[in-house]
Amino acid sequence: MKDTKLLEGIEISDEKEDLICYSYDASYAKGTIPEFVAWPKSSEEIVKVVKWATNRGLKMLPRGAGTGMAGGAIPINSRTVVISLERMREVLEINSKNFTATLEPGVINGELQKELMIYGLFYPPDPASMDYCTIGGNVATNAGGPRAIKYGVTRNYCLAIEVVLSTGTVLTLGGKTFKRVTGYEMKELFIGSEGTLGIISKITVRVLPQPEEVITLLISFNSVESAGKSVSEIIGSGIIPRTLEFLDSSCLSLIEKNFELGLPTNVEAMLLVELDGEITSIKRQGEKIVDIARKFNGEAKIATDYYSRENLWKARRSISPCILKMKDKEKINIDIAVPIDSLSKTFVKLNELSNKSNIPIISFGHAGDGNIHVNILVEKSNEEEKKQGFEMVKKIFEFTVSIGGAISGEHGIGITKKPYIDIQLEKKQIELMQAIKRVFDPKGFMNPGKIF
Amino acid sequence: MKDTKLLEGIEISDEKEDLICYSYDASYAKGTIPEFVAWPKSSEEIVKVVKWATNRGLKMLPRGAGTGMAGGAIPINSRTVVISLERMREVLEINSKNFTATLEPGVINGELQKELMIYGLFYPPDPASMDYCTIGGNVATNAGGPRAIKYGVTRNYCLAIEVVLSTGTVLTLGGKTFKRVTGYEMKELFIGSEGTLGIISKITVRVLPQPEEVITLLISFNSVESAGKSVSEIIGSGIIPRTLEFLDSSCLSLIEKNFELGLPTNVEAMLLVELDGEITSIKRQGEKIVDIARKFNGEAKIATDYYSRENLWKARRSISPCILKMKDKEKINIDIAVPIDSLSKTFVKLNELSNKSNIPIISFGHAGDGNIHVNILVEKSNEEEKKQGFEMVKKIFEFTVSIGGAISGEHGIGITKKPYIDIQLEKKQIELMQAIKRVFDPKGFMNPGKIF
Repeated sequence: MKDTKLLEGIEISDEKEDLICYSYDASYAKGTIPEFVAWPKSSEEIVKVVKWATNRGLKMLPRGAGTGMAGGAIPINSRTVVISLERMREVLEINSKNFTATLEPGVINGELQKELMIYGLFYPPDPASMDYCTIGGNVATNAGGPRAIKYGVTRNYCLAIEVVLSTGTVLTLGGKTFKRVTGYEMKELFIGSEGTLGIISKITVRVLPQPEEVITLLISFNSVESAGKSVSEIIGSGIIPRTLEFLDSSCLSLIEKNFELGLPTNVEAMLLVELDGEITSIKRQGEKIVDIARKFNGEAKIATDYYSRENLWKARRSISPCILKMKDKEKINIDIAVPIDSLSKTFVKLNELSNKSNIPIISFGHAGDGNIHVNILVEKSNEEEKKQGFEMVKKIFEFTVSIGGAISGEHGIGITKKPYIDIQLEKKQIELMQAIKRVFDPKGFMNPGKIF
Repeated sequence: MKDTKLLEGIEISDEKEDLICYSYDASYAKGTIPEFVAWPKSSEEIVKVVKWATNRGLKMLPRGAGTGMAGGAIPINSRTVVISLERMREVLEINSKNFTATLEPGVINGELQKELMIYGLFYPPDPASMDYCTIGGNVATNAGGPRAIKYGVTRNYCLAIEVVLSTGTVLTLGGKTFKRVTGYEMKELFIGSEGTLGIISKITVRVLPQPEEVITLLISFNSVESAGKSVSEIIGSGIIPRTLEFLDSSCLSLIEKNFELGLPTNVEAMLLVELDGEITSIKRQGEKIVDIARKFNGEAKIATDYYSRENLWKARRSISPCILKMKDKEKINIDIAVPIDSLSKTFVKLNELSNKSNIPIISFGHAGDGNIHVNILVEKSNEEEKKQGFEMVKKIFEFTVSIGGAISGEHGIGITKKPYIDIQLEKKQIELMQAIKRVFDPKGFMNPGKIF
């Protein structure tokens, strides 16, 4: 029944077709079909859904576009109402004097970027799924993206949020100023909380003036290690590019197969470097980078015009969906973050694990800030290989933590990484997090079974 | 008794001379003499002090250099042991490849800056007290500084902390990577928690490569409003200077009186603007700023050499101590943060309040990010005027919150702003903060009576 009578005029459904759509996300996780999906249109409507759900003992799962990579937005309890924020898509205010934008949670990241462009502004966080993913989901996972190396992640731009707690309380956390020390910054807890603390119903972000110019460099290398060393040296030289993306040879083949951009497929690794700022200054930086690349036998090309650059990024952003399309293969994808000086070591380790097991690994990601997306490709119907794949995940996480890294850089824990959380966090920390959850959601209504 | 026998070799004192030194900070708040001061030299020693204190029912107050402006480091319960982190001053690691520095909490901000300079690096947060204040204190108050407009505050650079809780538990929160989404980021709660959650015993910060060049501009204006409007237009033009400091005429007179730098004292307001980056690009930015200033009848001068620049900053940083030295006057100092587009409005309001009451207000601060230090100067022995002064504080805070601002940008709440916290935060938020405190410090040993 798709209905607006059930819940004081709020659109809600228990039709199977609707429910199935809301039982998966972009991860390999498998969830349960929820009992209801609701589409509130305002904070007031969210409060009504919350009260309605808690009265019925229903769990609640807030959801943006479902582009999450860790299963955070997948119901795992059938007595769940998915609270979809898709109908809350309004850009409430763009203040070009105060450099802030106030948004409903369902605003698409890419749509915001387009609107900001008119004002000569931009919002730095740019997850690969930016054409689909919502700002609410970005906050809930502390989303990053290629530009994080220079500009930081969602946490660095989220100034204020309005949240609806499972108790029905509505709070505004943070404010419109860039500086603020007024007690515990509870907003920071909600950033990356994956819907487990409350429902984010409004967001104010900081935005920046658009840079004058952008230069894009494509550099090919004959070895993964040389690419890794170049990354370290570029960063070490004092240049902070706005992106420094790494693609391995399997990535490049995959892109060429799907897009035919004319990328070299006979190289071992490629860096996609972008510089932004004033033209004279980024030209000089570009020359410096070309020199560094040469030292490691890297060959650089410059993509000058807007369209070739956009095509390149379109291709880069499509890697994940492309991998999903591979027949007979299932991808186990994880995103790790390692200290920048351990990048080469990490690539070597990944190669070693792949060679030893004969299971292909496609690696790409944000080399500049040590955030690597690792895709382990296992045969679809080979249960033994799948098991081996998950053992590799465990080994990669153990290695990551042993060198001071994080088992998730920008995807979150959700359910896919939950089995490994104790590699990262000691028991006491998990207990403290659980206690924090109880402060905001005493009866455990919000997205239960996620993270820990 | 100054002793190392009392507490397993840890230096501790109950001598009056010692205790008195630890009963005040840089604020106008008046505290109580504590029962003990302890100077642990390691995390292990901190744990021992914590166990010793809790066994005796003593409250604990972690303290850096005591340069805080809100009374956060002042004991208000006589049964307190002040835990001074002054003896934990080691820079444990500077990693110029990973762009991180790991520090003991008692490391002086300015000392860190000097060490980093050798590596061609710098740590952006630069509170005015940087030559004295400690990194631990900086984290505990989420300290900012003039460079925050371009580079952000302590929160943006603090990657990991080790904390000792009042339960004796030692936790490492965060890690050495720039990206990380692994459950609730509890580290963020400790940043700005003013010693109320636990004792910060180790810190890893992100550092940046030094910019190629710095240009300093001094711009004088005939009206406070023109200065405010210039700030808005400079920021609006897309330039992000590394500092954009505002000084009013009383500030300038004060500096001239104490330093004789040859600053014009017949102007109404002055902006101190710094640009950093590649020389060609900041030169262009400098020209643009001069043009903007001219539109508002501002007159610009360039301080080219290192020493004249350093003198200027020395003077800027000394304003607070200079005000303290004023005979017959007591300063009630507050730091507010307002949305940038409300700067002019705020200056006008402050002038209005001062004129109406005939109580002088000296304003200065970080105009670029809307963070203004407001000093209300009342007669030392005039209790009636003091009362009036505190009424002004309340009015300024109410105004600040009404325009979407924060009652503290970088000083914290401590005890001086505690009476006003409910202007900023609704009751429910304070209750949630208190519940969070109980999660980390169930028996209320840590710095009780502060913030809320």
